[in-house]
Amino acid sequence: MDSSNFSNHIKLNNIKIDDEFWSRYIELVRNEVIPYQLKALKDEVKDAPRSRCIDNFKKAAKTVKDIKSGKSVPTFPVDKWEYNDENSCPESFKGWVFQDSDIYKWLEAVSYSLVNTYDAKLHKTAQEYIDLICSAQLDNGYLDTLYIINDRSKIFTNLKDRHELYCFGHLAEAAVAYYNATGEDKLLNATYRFADLICDTFGESGKKGYPGHEIAEMALVKLYRLSGEEKYLNCADFFISERGKKPYYFDAERGYERKDGSLDYFYNQAHLQPKKQDEAVGHAVRGVYLYSGMADVSREKNDDELFSACQKIWDNIQSRKLYITGGIGATADGEAFSFDYDLPNDLAYSETCASIGLIFFARRMLEIKPDSKYADVMERALYNTVLSAMAQDGKSFFYVNPLEVLPTACRLDSRKRHVKAVRQKWFGCACCPPNIARLLSSLGEYCISENENNIFVHLYMGAEVNCENADIKITSDYLDSGKVSFDVKCRKPFTLAVRIPEWCDNFSISKEYEVKDGYAYIKIAKDTAVDIQFDIKIKLIKCSNLVRENIGKAAVMRGPVVYCIEEADNGSNLQLLSISPNAEFEYKKPCIIAKGKREKANNNLYSEYKKAEYEDCNIKFIPYSTWGNRGENEMAVYINIK
Amino acid sequence: MDSSNFSNHIKLNNIKIDDEFWSRYIELVRNEVIPYQLKALKDEVKDAPRSRCIDNFKKAAKTVKDIKSGKSVPTFPVDKWEYNDENSCPESFKGWVFQDSDIYKWLEAVSYSLVNTYDAKLHKTAQEYIDLICSAQLDNGYLDTLYIINDRSKIFTNLKDRHELYCFGHLAEAAVAYYNATGEDKLLNATYRFADLICDTFGESGKKGYPGHEIAEMALVKLYRLSGEEKYLNCADFFISERGKKPYYFDAERGYERKDGSLDYFYNQAHLQPKKQDEAVGHAVRGVYLYSGMADVSREKNDDELFSACQKIWDNIQSRKLYITGGIGATADGEAFSFDYDLPNDLAYSETCASIGLIFFARRMLEIKPDSKYADVMERALYNTVLSAMAQDGKSFFYVNPLEVLPTACRLDSRKRHVKAVRQKWFGCACCPPNIARLLSSLGEYCISENENNIFVHLYMGAEVNCENADIKITSDYLDSGKVSFDVKCRKPFTLAVRIPEWCDNFSISKEYEVKDGYAYIKIAKDTAVDIQFDIKIKLIKCSNLVRENIGKAAVMRGPVVYCIEEADNGSNLQLLSISPNAEFEYKKPCIIAKGKREKANNNLYSEYKKAEYEDCNIKFIPYSTWGNRGENEMAVYINIK
Repeated sequence: MDSSNFSNHIKLNNIKIDDEFWSRYIELVRNEVIPYQLKALKDEVKDAPRSRCIDNFKKAAKTVKDIKSGKSVPTFPVDKWEYNDENSCPESFKGWVFQDSDIYKWLEAVSYSLVNTYDAKLHKTAQEYIDLICSAQLDNGYLDTLYIINDRSKIFTNLKDRHELYCFGHLAEAAVAYYNATGEDKLLNATYRFADLICDTFGESGKKGYPGHEIAEMALVKLYRLSGEEKYLNCADFFISERGKKPYYFDAERGYERKDGSLDYFYNQAHLQPKKQDEAVGHAVRGVYLYSGMADVSREKNDDELFSACQKIWDNIQSRKLYITGGIGATADGEAFSFDYDLPNDLAYSETCASIGLIFFARRMLEIKPDSKYADVMERALYNTVLSAMAQDGKSFFYVNPLEVLPTACRLDSRKRHVKAVRQKWFGCACCPPNIARLLSSLGEYCISENENNIFVHLYMGAEVNCENADIKITSDYLDSGKVSFDVKCRKPFTLAVRIPEWCDNFSISKEYEVKDGYAYIKIAKDTAVDIQFDIKIKLIKCSNLVRENIGKAAVMRGPVVYCIEEADNGSNLQLLSISPNAEFEYKKPCIIAKGKREKANNNLYSEYKKAEYEDCNIKFIPYSTWGNRGENEMAVYINIK
Repeated sequence: MDSSNFSNHIKLNNIKIDDEFWSRYIELVRNEVIPYQLKALKDEVKDAPRSRCIDNFKKAAKTVKDIKSGKSVPTFPVDKWEYNDENSCPESFKGWVFQDSDIYKWLEAVSYSLVNTYDAKLHKTAQEYIDLICSAQLDNGYLDTLYIINDRSKIFTNLKDRHELYCFGHLAEAAVAYYNATGEDKLLNATYRFADLICDTFGESGKKGYPGHEIAEMALVKLYRLSGEEKYLNCADFFISERGKKPYYFDAERGYERKDGSLDYFYNQAHLQPKKQDEAVGHAVRGVYLYSGMADVSREKNDDELFSACQKIWDNIQSRKLYITGGIGATADGEAFSFDYDLPNDLAYSETCASIGLIFFARRMLEIKPDSKYADVMERALYNTVLSAMAQDGKSFFYVNPLEVLPTACRLDSRKRHVKAVRQKWFGCACCPPNIARLLSSLGEYCISENENNIFVHLYMGAEVNCENADIKITSDYLDSGKVSFDVKCRKPFTLAVRIPEWCDNFSISKEYEVKDGYAYIKIAKDTAVDIQFDIKIKLIKCSNLVRENIGKAAVMRGPVVYCIEEADNGSNLQLLSISPNAEFEYKKPCIIAKGKREKANNNLYSEYKKAEYEDCNIKFIPYSTWGNRGENEMAVYINIK
C-alpha cells in the first residue's frame, strides 16, 4: 500500500457540474426527487406504500419527552422486519426496521443539493427535520425510533436483523454532508453522541458485535476524518476485524446456531474475517458497503492485508459477477451475489442500491490506487444501472434492473415477481430512490480527486473545479463526440491524470503524456488548455461464453452507454431479431439504428430443423438507462448475432 | 361426438408385453420399485424422508376400534398440509395430507404386476394391507386417515386443501385394479361404501363441493363402468359441472374470499366451468387428472360441449405448453402450467406425475376419437419424461424433469431448488415413484384398443394380445430398426389401424391400407402377417421461436427418443458445444455421436465482439431417459446450432 498514491476527491463546494447530460439529472433530483421523497416520507403520496418514517420520529420524540417527564412509557414487540399489522397499537413503530434511514438519506441529498443550488426554503425544511430527529434522541445518545418507541430494554440485542447500526451509518453520512453544506453542527453533534455510545458499547472490552447490514464502518471513518477522533476509526476497524470470527456473534445473540448457518453467514459476509475474503458473496448492498468500509479502514490504518482483500473481492466482482450495465447481485435469492458467471438477464436482481454501493467502493479504491479499472466500473454502473433506475421525469423508480423483460412473465411467474416492467412510484422498502438522489446530487465528488502532485480525472463531465493546485474548467462532449477540454488555471505545477476509458481504442491528447494504469499523466506547469479526443464508436460487445445466457448474442454499446431494444420501437417477440456481426450502425443521438433481420414467427412447437426465414428490418436501440419510459413492453439488452 | 369411434383398451389380462426394451422396465418395477416402495411406506428405507403412510393406517384402525368399543377418542388439528412437528402428539396423523394415496398406488401397481407375473407372496402381502385399510374405515364408509385419526367432526370441511376426495380416487383406482387382477372384492366393497357416502354427501341436494385435487372424477367413472351404478357417473358429472361456478365453493368453505382469489381459482382449474375452458392452467397434475375425468364423463354422457373443451385444452397443451420430452407444467410456481410458450429448460418443473396424467388424458381422448396426435404425445411423454424419472436400477427417482442442469445452480440458486441433479431415493411427497410403478406395470393397457370393427395399435411394443376379433402376436424392433410385425390369428374380419408416428416421414406396410387421422387402416379377413417398416432417422428438431430459450438451438431425436448431452461424456460447460445444421450423426445403440465444435472458453467477461474460436470434437448424445445415472453432472437437451 503506497500512500503516495492516495488522493482525495474534490469536496462538493469546490466543484460545480455544468454538463448538458448530467445537469438535467441533477436538476431532476432537486426539483422532482427531493420534494417527492419528502412527501413519501410523510405518507402524502397517494397510492404509494406508506413510509411511516416521519411518523416514527414523531412517536419517538414523544416517547423521549414522556421518559424525561417521568411518564410511564409502553412497550411493544421488536421481533419483526416489518411492522404493518393494522391491528397493532397505533402508538407503536410502523414500517420496516430501517425506515429511519430514509430521512437521513433525504437529508444527505438535500445537503448536497444546497451546495449545488442554495434554496432557503429547503434549508429551513431540513432544519425542521433535524430538530425532529434530535428530539427523538435518548439522553445517552441512542437514536433509533424502532427501539425508542417499542422497547428501550432491547437496544443492541439483535444486531443481525434490526438495523440500528445501519440507521446510525446513514445518520452519520447525512450529518457530515449537512455540516459540510451548512456549517451547522446540531445534527453532527447528535451523531457524535450516538457514535460515542456505539464506541463505548462495542469493542474488545464490550459487546463483540458488528452490524448485520454494513455501512457504519465507512460512516465511522467519515466521522473520524471530520473530527480526528481515533476511537471512531478504531470502532470501524473493530467491526471489520471482529466480523466472521467464530463462534459467530449472531448465533450467540440469538441464542442458537442455525442449521443452515453457513448460508446465513455468507448472506452477511460474515463467513470469514473480511481480510481473508476473496469473493463477493451474500446480500450485494451489504457486501459493497462492507467493502467500502474495508477500503476506508485499510487506507487509514495502512492495512495491506485488508486492502489486498479489497482488491481480490474487486477483481472477483469485475471479472465474474458484474452485469454489462454495472449491475451486481444477480440473484433475488437474498438480493445477493450469485456464483461466478451466473448473470441471468430476465431473472436479474441487480438492485439499484447495489450499483450505487459499487460506485462507493470504486471511488474508495481509486483514491487509494489510481487504476482506471475502478473508474471504468464506476462509469458503467453510473451511466447504465443507476440512471436506468429513475424515470426520465424523476417520478418513478426501479428497485431491480433486469436486462431482459417480458411483461407477461413479470406478472405471471413468481420467480420474476421482483422484476417490474415499469418503474414504481415508491417502495415500502424505499432504499433505492433516496440513494439515487444522494448519489446524483453529490456527483461532483466522484469525478475528480487530487493529492499533492496530481489531479485525477475519473469521470468526464462539464464542470468548474477548484483544486489545490489549479482551477479547471472542463468542457465535455464526452457522450456525443468524445471530446473533452480542460482550461487550466495553474497555481503550482502538477500532473493532470486523465482516465483512458476501457471502451476507447484510440484517443489523442493535445499535450505530451505518459500512460500508467489506465491514466494518461500530463505534466502541467502553467495555465494551459488540454484537449482530449476519445474516439467513440458503436461496438458490439460479447459476454464471456461462461455466462450461459448470452451465447450467440451480443450487446450494443457506444462509449460507456449500454443500449437495449424495446418493443415500442421494434415490435413484440424481441427474441426474433438479429443483427450480423458486421452490422452497420447509425447514431441518431441518443439512439442507434441498425439494419437487422426478423425471423418469421413459427408457431409449430416442434418441427424438423430447417433454415429459418427472415425478413430485413431496421432495429432501433435506445440507451438502457431510458428503457421502460413508454409503458409496459418487452426489453432486451442482448440481441442475437447471426 | 361419434360413438362409432369409441374404442376400449385391451384389459391387462389380455395383453402380455414381451419386448426387449419395455420388459426390462416392467421387471424393474416388479423386482425393485414395488418392494422398495412398500419399504418406504413402512418407513424402513434408511436416510429417506419418512412416509408415515402405513403408520397412519394403523393409527386410524385403532381409532376405529376405539370408537366401536365406545372408548373416548382424542382430537388433533387438521389445519395443515403436512404434519411433521416432532413436538406433536405421537398418536396424531403424520406426513402429508395425501399420504394415504401412496398405499393405494402401491396396491394398484401390485395388482397389475400380479396380472403380468403372478407372485403368491406379493398377493398375500397385498391382502394384509387391504385388511389394514379396511379396518381403518368408519362405519359410514368414510376412509381417510387424517380425519379419522385427528378429527372426525371436520370431515369434508376443507375440500380445497385436504385431499380426502383425492385419496378416495386413488383408493377406487386401486380397488378396481385389484378386483380385476384377483377377483377379490373386499377392497372394492369398501370403496363402494366410501363412494356411496360421497354420492350421498355431494350433489344438487347436498354439499355443492368438488375435489381440490382432482382424480375422483375419473375414479368414479371406473366404479360406474365396473358396477353399472349410475350414481357414480352422476357424481363425477356433478363434480365437473359444479366446478368453477360462482360463488366459489372453496371461498364459502373457508369463510372468506381471497384477495388474490383469481390465481387461486386457476390453480385448481376452478376459474371457469370445465366445459367452458380452453386452456390448460394451474397445477399440472390436477389439470390432467381433471381433463381425464372430463373426457370420461363426456364419453359416458355423450356430452359434446365437454368433449369439445377437452379437445381445446388438449390442443393448447400440445401446441404451446408441452416440452419436447413430453413434460408439462413448466413452472415450479404452483407446480403449474405456465403461459403459452413459456418452457424454460433449466427452471422446468415438468413433474413426472404430470406427464403420467397426460398419458391418462391421451388414452381417454384416443379411445373417444382415434387420432394419432394423442398417441404421439403419449409416446413422447412415455419414452422420455416418464422413463427419465426412474434410475436405470429402479432405485431412485426424479420428481422434476429439467431439460438443462448445472449442478452448481441447483445447489446455490433457490429458484432452481426444485431441480435435482441426481435422482432421489424417495420423497416426503412421494407421488411420482408409485405413479411410475402403476403406469409401467399396466403399460399393456396403453398400447392397443378395440371396438366392434377395429383394432387400434397406438404404441409399438412386442406383445401377445387377445382381442375380440383376433389374437395378435406383435414383434417389435420399433426403437432400433423401426420394424414391427403382426402375426394375426383372425376370429372375424376387422380393420387393423396402426398409428403412423409423427416422427416418421416414410414407412411401408406389407398390406394395402388407407390413412385417416394418422392411422393406417388395414382390412384383415383371415389369418395373416402384417409387416411395417417405419424409417427411423436421427433428426434435428427445432423448437418454435416463440419459446425464447431455444433460439439458435435444436434437439436431437431418433424416432420417439429425445437425446441429451451430458458432462460425463462431453466435459463441462456444455453451452460451449455446437453442431452444424448438417451434422452427420452416427447411431451407436442407444447413443448417437456427432462431429461438432467446442468454442474455446473465454474468461473475459466483456470484450469487443469477434468471431469465436472453436475446436473440433465428437459430441456424444444419450437418450434423455438415461441422463443422471452417472452422478451429478451438467446435462442439456438443446444444443447450439452453428
